[in-house]
Order: sequence, then structure tokens, then C-alpha cells
Amino acid sequence: MAIATRYHWEKLESFCSSVFEKAGVSKENSRIVANSLIEADLRGVDSHGVVRTAIYLERIEKGMIDPDAKPVISNESDAALLVDGHNNFGSVVGTNALTIALEKARENGVALVGVKHSNHFGTGAYYAKKAIDQDIILLVLSNASQTMPPTGGVRPFIGTNPLAVGIPAGENPPFILDMATSVVARGKIIVEAQKGNSIPLGWAIDKEGNPTTDANAALEGSVLPLGGPKGYGISMFIDILAGVLTGAGFGKYVNNMYSNWEEPQNVGHIFLAIDVNAFMPIELFKQRMDQYITEIKAEPKATGVEEIFIPGEIESRRAEERKENGIELPLKVVEELNSIGMRYGVDLAAATYELNSLGEVQK
Amino acid sequence: MAIATRYHWEKLESFCSSVFEKAGVSKENSRIVANSLIEADLRGVDSHGVVRTAIYLERIEKGMIDPDAKPVISNESDAALLVDGHNNFGSVVGTNALTIALEKARENGVALVGVKHSNHFGTGAYYAKKAIDQDIILLVLSNASQTMPPTGGVRPFIGTNPLAVGIPAGENPPFILDMATSVVARGKIIVEAQKGNSIPLGWAIDKEGNPTTDANAALEGSVLPLGGPKGYGISMFIDILAGVLTGAGFGKYVNNMYSNWEEPQNVGHIFLAIDVNAFMPIELFKQRMDQYITEIKAEPKATGVEEIFIPGEIESRRAEERKENGIELPLKVVEELNSIGMRYGVDLAAATYELNSLGEVQK
Repeated sequence: MAIATRYHWEKLESFCSSVFEKAGVSKENSRIVANSLIEADLRGVDSHGVVRTAIYLERIEKGMIDPDAKPVISNESDAALLVDGHNNFGSVVGTNALTIALEKARENGVALVGVKHSNHFGTGAYYAKKAIDQDIILLVLSNASQTMPPTGGVRPFIGTNPLAVGIPAGENPPFILDMATSVVARGKIIVEAQKGNSIPLGWAIDKEGNPTTDANAALEGSVLPLGGPKGYGISMFIDILAGVLTGAGFGKYVNNMYSNWEEPQNVGHIFLAIDVNAFMPIELFKQRMDQYITEIKAEPKATGVEEIFIPGEIESRRAEERKENGIELPLKVVEELNSIGMRYGVDLAAATYELNSLGEVQK
Repeated sequence: MAIATRYHWEKLESFCSSVFEKAGVSKENSRIVANSLIEADLRGVDSHGVVRTAIYLERIEKGMIDPDAKPVISNESDAALLVDGHNNFGSVVGTNALTIALEKARENGVALVGVKHSNHFGTGAYYAKKAIDQDIILLVLSNASQTMPPTGGVRPFIGTNPLAVGIPAGENPPFILDMATSVVARGKIIVEAQKGNSIPLGWAIDKEGNPTTDANAALEGSVLPLGGPKGYGISMFIDILAGVLTGAGFGKYVNNMYSNWEEPQNVGHIFLAIDVNAFMPIELFKQRMDQYITEIKAEPKATGVEEIFIPGEIESRRAEERKENGIELPLKVVEELNSIGMRYGVDLAAATYELNSLGEVQK
């Protein structure tokens, strides 16, 4: 019998959540971690989806993540707060920090929450979307382990430190920008290497610091920052706020999730939340956003372009589509999840996306 | 007699300040505007320096800037404030907003000041540097009139909306990132067009939306955002915060300083100020910054690279050099300033950088 590769998003989320529970994570935190993975898959950011289940479990098992730790506010002024994640899951720590940021933004108009002692927190869009649901504007920054050189350097020093922004709109889709500060994601280079393809000049340098079109040489070298010195500057800014300012790691002191098994990652994050009502009534703001988005989407299009999109719009549509038609996983990921399920006694097959006898989707 | 082209920075600042006073601007505001121009020239950002004196004067004379207007806080919560610039100079309005942001950041740990009804505010680095002098981290955003298309579009919709960040360090130079969200400044394309040179593919599109290496065709078309959709997203984010959220213009409602003489620009800005002490003692933070900067500068260098710089370091050195050796202005700018001086009865020659009989600089 062929193994199923299409899964129902809610059932797949339950599967992941159950696995984390069986691995000793509390029900509440298991749900957060599973939800953050599924949200990434729904939006098409498969690299940050259920494919991460295995590494997350391995980091618990080897004591690199403490799923019982309680994030603590370790420093507090009215609108600027520091959360010590005490090395719980990044998405658990991040969700805690977000909750505080949203609450404090409502009290003060704006709130800045810094986070130290955290881990890989999934996608920034995950938090941006939650803020949008509460009519709050959110800027999220996180540092990451070393993958990019400084301008003029030859080896990784800074991470592809991501930034994400969520801004609510009215009738139009919300603005959700979620980007790494590299030219392209390292994952794209891995894919090209696997296919035996070359990569465009400008994506990466080899380990001697020379520009390269060889995907394998690029993987041994460094991904390049977006736009040269500008991306280097933005990435460094993120590292300083998320790392230097919070007391988390920065530069080489942010440990790699896949290769360092000696000590926790000590990732740092920043959550900046803005209550629109401090500036204008939310309904007026949403009208202005709708006007802005409508005007930009009505712009004349370049040859071959069917539609002008705003950031996050494609991903939001994909999420609707995947909620409707299920999430297709690569066979390799299915096999991995299957073996995880067998190890923890959770049945992956129960999450299969079922078609009826007419080949129609069973809701 | 050959006309002098090298000027003493403080004397040139006095010249500009006197001209603005003669044009009806208060002494205090004249000093702010002149100081913001000279600071740009000192740092080597000549496009934002005294070359702008003429257009600033013209906009006062034609009623497009109101130099008597008093910026007013029109909305206030504890840490989020809105300043209505009432159409005074951008640098005057910006300096007011910065003062409020620094004060409120000290009270609340963080402060976000939005600004509407402003004008071109000079360089973001101008404000970043002032915040650094007071041990405050600053993020500055501004929107601008239309120069870049959305991804997939063919004509300008968003500005090259700049962002600037200032972060204090200890012994090492501070971090000052100040960048437009375009691949290159439009001014660079103007220079190449004047020289009859072509431009690299990727800098701009022509007016039909086709990629072009023709500098003149590029000037009739659009500058492209940094890194394609990423720069488009960042620029749009800046427009939304600085424009949509504050009540300023956004998209096509930010008027061009050079071509629109019907109504004020209605530029919007954002000043986000962070008091380091809300997170850790400033001295500890500066130690961490020094370590970070020292480590990044000590990285192995690519072939032909003599030094790895952090953002703003080159400009800070240039400012020291120009304070020492004077500011060299293009002859065309000197002639323009000279004629402005004659019109307002202020002597440009008094600002000449003088050498003694040995050819040495007179301090």
C-alpha cells in the first residue's frame, strides 16, 4: 500500500502536539509548538514546518531545550521588558513574549519586549499574524547562528537574522512581511545542490571568500547578505537588538541548532508592538490601509505579471488553499514523521487527508 | 581670481544659518536646518548637504514650507506620541520629535513618536547621531515621494523610503546605519548619465518597466528596490508606519519636493527610541558592543579588502577628516551658494577654508 503524503492540517497538528506531549512537553506548550509548525506549512514555508519536528525532539532528548522551563520577566519598565526564556522552545518563549508585548502595547501605546535564552522560534509571521488578529502592529526580530560574512569578510559571522512585520488591514489582506536578511534562504542553495544545478552569482561565496556559482562550494562557504552592505547592516542591527541588548548570544555566541550539542542556542528576539489606537482610530487606519493596498494592487503591471501582490498575500492564499486541500509532504518527511509516530505511539495515518469514493475531499 | 571651493565646516554652517535667518527663519530653526545640512556634508553624504540650501529656500519663498509653524503633539499616550509638524522644515520637525522621543524613552524604556505634516528631513543619521550622544538607541524611518515600483509594477509607487539606526558603543565607533531602500541612490544614476556611462542591470527599469542599462532611460523610469520583493516589502512597511499610521501622505500622496508647487509635501516620519538601561546597565551594553565590533573587525578579510567596517564607520572617519581639512564643494554648488549669499547679503567667501603662506591649514 502506498504511503499517504497528503495530510489534514488540524489532524497533522494534533499528531505533532501528541508527539511532543509524549516526549514530556506540557499539553499547552505542545500545542504552541505544533501550531507554529503547522502554520508555517500552511503558508508554504515548508522549511519551518513539521520537517522541524525531528530536530526539536532531538534537542529535548539531549537536554538542549528545557520544555519545563518557565519564561520569566527579568527586568521591567513601563513599556520595555526583558523576558528570560530559560531555554524553553523558541515558539513557547516567543508566544509568552508576544502576549506580554500585546498587553503592554495596549497600556502604553507601544511596547518593546526583548528576549534572551531562547531557541529557534519558527517563523516571524507566526507572531505577526497573531498580533494582526488583535489589531496590533508588530515588528519581530530574531538573531540566528552564523551563516553570512560581514561585507569584506570571507566566512560566516552573522546569521541570516530575520525580520517580520504584521500590519492589519480592513477588507484587504493584512500586510505580513517575513524575510531573512540574506539574498536567498540557505535551503534554496541546498535544493539546487541536490539537483546538481549551479546557482546565480551573488547568492553566496565559497569558503575562500570568492564569488561562486557552485552550489556545493556555496554550502561550504557563506550565504551573502541582501544587497551587500545594506543587508549586512540590517542583519547586524538585528543581532545587536536581539542579542547584544537582551543579553542573549550574538555573532558566534548564538549556537547552531543542528551542530552544537554542548550548550543551548541562546537565541535572542525582539517584539515591538504598536497599538494603532494611540495614533488614530483603528477603523480609520484600516480604511487607509485598504486604500493603500487597493491602489498598489491597481498599478500597471510589467509584461507577464498577472497580479501585484503585497507582502504575505501569496502565503495567506496558500494557507486557505492548504486548509481546504490538505498539506502535501515530501515522502522523506512522511517517513521521518512516521518513525517518530511509531517511537512515541502516535498514529500518523490518522492525519491522512481522506478523499471519498468520488475522489472528493472529506471535510 | 579663482573661486574657492574648500570651506570651513563651522563657517559654512554659519553662512547657511545666516541665509535662512535672512529668509525669515528664526535663529533657532535656522541653526537646526544649517546644522543638519553640514552634518551630511561632513559625513560625505553630499547629496543631502548644503546643495539643498537652494531648494529649501525656494520652498519657503513659494509658501511650501512654513518656517514659523510650531510642531504640536496632537495625540499622546505614555510611550506613543503623534507630532503634527504643521509643515515646518523636516529637520526642525524631526529635531522636535527626536527630543520628545528621547525624553519619553527615558521615562518608559521605549518611545515611539510618529510625525505627520513634515517635509524632507535630511539624513536619518543626523538624528541617530544625536541619540547616540545621549546613550539612546534610535530607529528612524521616513517616507518619501514616489521613485520605486512595487514588485511586478512598471512605474514609481513607493519612495526609496530610508531607514536609519543609531546604537552607541564604548571605545569603538558607534553603529550608524543610514540607507535608502533602493538598490542605489537615484543620485548615482544621475552621475552616470552625466558621464555618459551605462549602469549595471538591476539598478533600474525604463518607463515601460523593462530592465535597462541606459542611465537616461533609467532616470525616466524607476529605481528598483533593494533585493527585489524584500526591499519592496521594507519600503512599504516604512510607508505604512511613517505615512498611513501617522496621518501623513503615503504612496502618491507624498508630494515631490522638486516638482510639486501646489501643496506641501506631507512627509511622515517615525522615531523609535530605546533606553538601553531598561535592559542592562549602559556600561555593560557598551562593553558588549565593543566586543561585538572588535570581533567583527578582526574577521579574516577577502582578497583586496584592507579593513572590515561597521555601518557608519567610514562616514564617521570622513567627518573627522573634513572637520580637519575642510569641505570641498563642487564648483556648481559654490556658484549657487554664492548667488544665494549675494541675494541675502551674506558673504560666502568668509567661510573659505584658509591656508597659510606655507599651504598649511588655518584652524
